[in-house]
Amino acid sequence: MGQVTYQKLRRDAQAIFRAALRAADPREGIRRARPRFQALLDRPYDHIYVVGAGKASAAMALEVERILGRRISGGLINTKHGHLATLRRIELNECAHPVPDEAGVAGARRIAQIAAEATAQDLVICLISGGASALLPLPAEGLTLDDKQHVTRQLLACGANIHEINTVRKHLSAIKGGQLAALAAPAKLLTLVLSDVIGDDLSVIGSGPTVPDGSTFAQAREILARYRIQPSAAVARHLAAEARENPTRLPHAQTLIVGANRLAVDAAASEARQRGYRPLVLSTTIEGETRDVARMHAAIAREVLESGQPVRSPACLISGGETTVTLDADGKGGRNQEFVLAAALDLPPGVVVLSAGTDGTDGPTDAAGAIADSQTLTKAKARGLDPRAYLARHDSYHFFDALGDLIRTGPTGTNVMDVRLLLTAARPLVKSSAKAAKEPPALKAERPVKSPKSRR
Amino acid sequence: MGQVTYQKLRRDAQAIFRAALRAADPREGIRRARPRFQALLDRPYDHIYVVGAGKASAAMALEVERILGRRISGGLINTKHGHLATLRRIELNECAHPVPDEAGVAGARRIAQIAAEATAQDLVICLISGGASALLPLPAEGLTLDDKQHVTRQLLACGANIHEINTVRKHLSAIKGGQLAALAAPAKLLTLVLSDVIGDDLSVIGSGPTVPDGSTFAQAREILARYRIQPSAAVARHLAAEARENPTRLPHAQTLIVGANRLAVDAAASEARQRGYRPLVLSTTIEGETRDVARMHAAIAREVLESGQPVRSPACLISGGETTVTLDADGKGGRNQEFVLAAALDLPPGVVVLSAGTDGTDGPTDAAGAIADSQTLTKAKARGLDPRAYLARHDSYHFFDALGDLIRTGPTGTNVMDVRLLLTAARPLVKSSAKAAKEPPALKAERPVKSPKSRR
Repeated sequence: MGQVTYQKLRRDAQAIFRAALRAADPREGIRRARPRFQALLDRPYDHIYVVGAGKASAAMALEVERILGRRISGGLINTKHGHLATLRRIELNECAHPVPDEAGVAGARRIAQIAAEATAQDLVICLISGGASALLPLPAEGLTLDDKQHVTRQLLACGANIHEINTVRKHLSAIKGGQLAALAAPAKLLTLVLSDVIGDDLSVIGSGPTVPDGSTFAQAREILARYRIQPSAAVARHLAAEARENPTRLPHAQTLIVGANRLAVDAAASEARQRGYRPLVLSTTIEGETRDVARMHAAIAREVLESGQPVRSPACLISGGETTVTLDADGKGGRNQEFVLAAALDLPPGVVVLSAGTDGTDGPTDAAGAIADSQTLTKAKARGLDPRAYLARHDSYHFFDALGDLIRTGPTGTNVMDVRLLLTAARPLVKSSAKAAKEPPALKAERPVKSPKSRR
Repeated sequence: MGQVTYQKLRRDAQAIFRAALRAADPREGIRRARPRFQALLDRPYDHIYVVGAGKASAAMALEVERILGRRISGGLINTKHGHLATLRRIELNECAHPVPDEAGVAGARRIAQIAAEATAQDLVICLISGGASALLPLPAEGLTLDDKQHVTRQLLACGANIHEINTVRKHLSAIKGGQLAALAAPAKLLTLVLSDVIGDDLSVIGSGPTVPDGSTFAQAREILARYRIQPSAAVARHLAAEARENPTRLPHAQTLIVGANRLAVDAAASEARQRGYRPLVLSTTIEGETRDVARMHAAIAREVLESGQPVRSPACLISGGETTVTLDADGKGGRNQEFVLAAALDLPPGVVVLSAGTDGTDGPTDAAGAIADSQTLTKAKARGLDPRAYLARHDSYHFFDALGDLIRTGPTGTNVMDVRLLLTAARPLVKSSAKAAKEPPALKAERPVKSPKSRR
């Protein structure tokens, strides 16, 4: 397989990813969903306030301004640094992510205040997107941001999933787990959500500031115990006190999902088909440890090329969701870059793999993800890079940076988790030994032996 | 979904697994391959000796006796305890597996002797199947079985893959890595192989006692270093001495694969189709940490039920290969039982999952694997069993034993790695939120909130 063919596969993979990004655009999502909330907008209000948080919420606010214009009295969105839009009536407040900062706290406090001051004649529109948990940090009374950060950092590092992290966050917060909606009553509340979680569970997205919360203080304590996390004394005291469980009923609040991972994945499938690949969506809800998930993707691509199962080549395997990296070393990278690196170690000839976050940011890096192909190991070796060592250090960023294979999109204005693509080239199927055993060819002599290492 | 439907799915899953077992029968495999080696048998020989090792090698020997009858002068097969067949001319020697014992050493020494004494007018037939590495233990000069076991135990426990384990074994052995074939020269040598390794690499199966060996002493040392394994002084000395690298050319030796995982997987697909399921073979080369691989399988089943991708329900997802369990606790179980337990934690309604080893033995247990469905968690709860705790302890055997959900086949006489099945019930597709966002239904009000724990 020549260089030129890999270049074609790489170009196609990047175009397919761009199609996924376009479909996940939150402005497009709000336009699509508008018939479902227009009736609520058509009622008379004294004031309409727009609040929210998340990496895509600035873009969402832009569309809400386009729809409502001067009817908006004001509002505030906590957004991640650089995730901006030019707004006229809604203020943007840039804050830190994934570790919250005091700017986030100040913004969250003002958002809580806007909600609290809204009356029964008002409408509050809340725009929630990925990152809202970290971007809406309002510690419960008696707690500091440090108390919360200390716990969050440990949860992120120990491989806890987003559900577990958010259950804890909801019980250290004065705004999450439906508490923002409780503050907004008796005003009407419309929440538009761009989902960035597996299964699109509203109570989990952004830690559900405007949705009823079924989780409890007891569960939050249990999760800390499960991961052997030692909270500060103030946190332990707060969780033990169980001051007031979060609201389980919020009749004035309505919530709509305007975008999710499946839209991106389906658009990728459609673009792949147009480019001559047989698309196969494996799942939009992939979780688990990144490197093992990557190996399984590579094993499926290998099967495509060896037996034409589960789909014939040229194929485009597509999956969505969000994997985990259990940190046991301090390299630089993100789950998407690590996915591509781990997959590259197992790729048969004729495959290109791309994985990237739809928000444009993969872990604490300036890349969205990475791209590799079956020749990446050879190229790396030629430059003296040891892919196994980079993977062991979780240092995928520096590996792909050296190869020029990082995918950089900048902030995309959306966030519907990750998209992973494996493109397989059209070529004659390789006969596997098992297949051969069915047929009656001549006696097979010894063959050149592959060193065991060449397989990995 | 009622109990009755799950019972139907379970029955179908078990029947599909049985079909996979039938296709992997090594006697059937030898019959299928016979046209490819008959010419070699048809030559005149003074003696024909049959040797070998592996869990399926007794069954293979039975078929060879059927073909050659009295032409066989004698021979010896090292087999695993209980993996027997009634042979007339070939002796069976029962040994321990996966940790080798002195019976194995005594048998291996006699096998080496038979090969060494064969002349240019003789034919040696060698029957290799899964487990042959542990069942053909002949320590290199100066080493004891204890030396080898000490290293093997550590390699098994630390998550090293079979390629790595065998590279080390080949360099601590007097018979592996082509050394048995070197002993057999100048006799003709025919090796029939039932493959139990990913990719069917002949140099890896049974540590390749009759195939040229490209691996080196340096690689063996490297693998021990990678996993920070401290060998005994004798082993370290032996590996450092590099007495003689294994043979890289063996012109008198010929090797044929008579069975492999794909045959079992393809037969499962065929049986599933006959039972009304849409089969989808994901891959026959699945490796990686069991619980993460299991979660990905569950995520694909979820997608089948939510969106009809990658295949419409009723579907049968099938995969083969062999996963790893990194032991960090001392429960009882095997990779197949752990796969089913981990998958059960993530199953949506309407799914049955079965995973079993084709050899009938899953890890150090008397079960081949296990079966579970979407109601397993509920049943477990009713009995006070905490599935997460069992998984954390790698104690899947006791979990499924308590539920009566172990799969017990007894020794099957074959070994082509594992077969995993996920059957999804026919039912109307569940609309996901993302799908719903495309359509114009009424405004969505708050909904009962799932506790985050209910998802896992």
